[in-house]
Amino acid sequence: MTENSSLLAEFPTCPRDVQDRPRVFTSASGAYVTDKSGFCWIDFDNARGSIVLGHGDPRVVEAVGRAATGADGTATGWSPRVDAVLERLHALCGGEVVGLFRSGTAAVRAAGLAVREATGRPLLVSAGYHGYDPMWYPSDAPLVPNADGVVDFFFDLGLLAELLAAPERVAAVVVSPDHMHLSAAWYRELRQLCSAAGVVLIADEVKVGLRYSPGLSTAELLNPDVWVVAKGMANGHAVSAVGGPRALLRPLKEVSFTSFFEPTILAAADAVLSRVATGEPQRALREAGDRFLCHARKALQDAALPVEIAGDGTFFQFVPASEELEYAFYAAANTEGLLFYAGDNQGVSAAFDDAVLTDAEQRFTRVCDRLSAYAGGEPVDEAARYRVAWNVMDGLREAERDRAATDGMLARLLDD
Amino acid sequence: MTENSSLLAEFPTCPRDVQDRPRVFTSASGAYVTDKSGFCWIDFDNARGSIVLGHGDPRVVEAVGRAATGADGTATGWSPRVDAVLERLHALCGGEVVGLFRSGTAAVRAAGLAVREATGRPLLVSAGYHGYDPMWYPSDAPLVPNADGVVDFFFDLGLLAELLAAPERVAAVVVSPDHMHLSAAWYRELRQLCSAAGVVLIADEVKVGLRYSPGLSTAELLNPDVWVVAKGMANGHAVSAVGGPRALLRPLKEVSFTSFFEPTILAAADAVLSRVATGEPQRALREAGDRFLCHARKALQDAALPVEIAGDGTFFQFVPASEELEYAFYAAANTEGLLFYAGDNQGVSAAFDDAVLTDAEQRFTRVCDRLSAYAGGEPVDEAARYRVAWNVMDGLREAERDRAATDGMLARLLDD
Repeated sequence: MTENSSLLAEFPTCPRDVQDRPRVFTSASGAYVTDKSGFCWIDFDNARGSIVLGHGDPRVVEAVGRAATGADGTATGWSPRVDAVLERLHALCGGEVVGLFRSGTAAVRAAGLAVREATGRPLLVSAGYHGYDPMWYPSDAPLVPNADGVVDFFFDLGLLAELLAAPERVAAVVVSPDHMHLSAAWYRELRQLCSAAGVVLIADEVKVGLRYSPGLSTAELLNPDVWVVAKGMANGHAVSAVGGPRALLRPLKEVSFTSFFEPTILAAADAVLSRVATGEPQRALREAGDRFLCHARKALQDAALPVEIAGDGTFFQFVPASEELEYAFYAAANTEGLLFYAGDNQGVSAAFDDAVLTDAEQRFTRVCDRLSAYAGGEPVDEAARYRVAWNVMDGLREAERDRAATDGMLARLLDD
Repeated sequence: MTENSSLLAEFPTCPRDVQDRPRVFTSASGAYVTDKSGFCWIDFDNARGSIVLGHGDPRVVEAVGRAATGADGTATGWSPRVDAVLERLHALCGGEVVGLFRSGTAAVRAAGLAVREATGRPLLVSAGYHGYDPMWYPSDAPLVPNADGVVDFFFDLGLLAELLAAPERVAAVVVSPDHMHLSAAWYRELRQLCSAAGVVLIADEVKVGLRYSPGLSTAELLNPDVWVVAKGMANGHAVSAVGGPRALLRPLKEVSFTSFFEPTILAAADAVLSRVATGEPQRALREAGDRFLCHARKALQDAALPVEIAGDGTFFQFVPASEELEYAFYAAANTEGLLFYAGDNQGVSAAFDDAVLTDAEQRFTRVCDRLSAYAGGEPVDEAARYRVAWNVMDGLREAERDRAATDGMLARLLDD
């Protein structure tokens, strides 16, 4: 076998070496992944947050292995597992109807187009990343819709208010929630703006859904009309879901795809959803993440390194004071075998037990030791916070600013 | 567990009972699937042709079960399995680069949009079904592009020639090959039209790729510029692929999704592609299908039933003389436990051994017995052939006709 990254048409998001070549992993177990040299990493990436229970979770493995034999049903048609997964999603996230898809990208696109067709309104007003589909590509200028009728408000509620000044043109506001850089007050104002304008609110919880709690992370903050979840559903297996009112999702009736009933994916989803419904994996990973964060913040402080950490144990993000320090930080982490999602959110899994955490803490202390050249540097400033938040949100962090400041920030960050 | 088809936002294509409710299957093995009443069906649907090796193929089961444990890699990143799958696809289907997706719908959309962006031309000229995405929805009138710049030529080469009269507007011709209602000559003329116009040809072999032979079914007939395969890749597991020239697929660089490296799907694809590369499963299912067809044609003739069969053992389609007989035919097949894909193509798997075939033949004879009321009816006419072909192709079967006849056919069939 050669490493055929040059044969791949895509440039997938995944851990990469300093030459930007994908790192090649040969196995994974619990909180650890092993690369082809035999080096053992602690996985804070977890397939960009999809692995909630840890690699090779025994109950998921058993369910998938059994389903693969045909013992639970067939890709040819409906099975009791379809009912089970639909019921679990309905119980956790609500919605009169639920649709199943194969990727977050497919689910958010389907939700957006369904609401557009159901409302007969042309525009989707968006904030955050909604998958790789070209429909979400940037327009030529801020506040101008792109060719697919999508216009971004970059999480700035002032811009949103402007865009909602003609609500009869807006099919929906589509937001990918973030809980590292936006407060509860921000979400309440978002909900108020949508309600006042009478515009449908779609929560794209592909990333955060089910990871924070047994259900939508914005259930109380936003009470979204339509929801999308994916990463929290099946421990990395390929499935996503949309839910909401029958009237808004009626156009999904036309959706039909062949691998709909694939038994191993449904088995994984059923096994994972039964666990996340208890809240236990979310509590476990939050506690593990919080313990790690407590250590990491102290280690950074002890080493006088200007690196803040945004978020909490569920999802957190390192905020280094400069791009140079950021580069050095992730390089040092790689040397010590801490597999971070470079520049983005870190997500531990429920497999981070005491032994893993002790190992991770010792590695992190050594990372700080390696960065002694940066000790006592200039502290993290607002520009650094905006830059790092932009990397994870595709938009502006919450902060006091007027329209001129917003325009300036957008010009700078869109240009990067 | 209840049967929650009312909770599902979608109306999935799958075996259904007379009330259009999905039939519920509890297990599957080889050529058989079992429903919740314990009744055992012979599966000619095979997840709309995705199950090539049979349900629960032991080598696929072993590969998937092992991959689920993490022993082969992780969804967090690249693994040797990614290389293996890319190399196998490249060897079988060609292409300077290969992209991986989760569904045929996603792959064909990505291929079409990539070629559109690479060529800078706006139109996609299409024939056949390309998945559930709304981009392929019909336009208001024949020969008029829809809102997504897609215009259908319905497999009519006269219409295609008209649409290619302004080739500088056409990014690509996208065709889903059919080998039941179109001849080799038809494909050669299609290739000639595209070459003469200098327009990219995309073969959407989601359905037929790898099932007819170890590679594209149109490799020699069309030598397509860009290809898409899916159903033949992984025995029903959720993966699809696009291949072609680097220059045409360069926009796919932007494509990145989280479950990209999901180990069980890659393991299934690797196991299946190693088998289909030998041509052995395709030979086995072709021989099994041919033996069944030989029996079925004789049984229909002996019973004096006006039902033709289009195609060959790889994929075939029943062509009843009337809609009334068609309904009765599938109802009788259901009673006898022959799980046909109603109105569409039938696809046996390599698990159809002698014992299965003998069972299937006996059941088919009893189906004919049940239809004695239709014996000696009017023979199958051209209208019936067009209607049935339309069901499987979303277009017009190959036949001599002038433009007026084409227009009349389209008006009638689009209206149905």
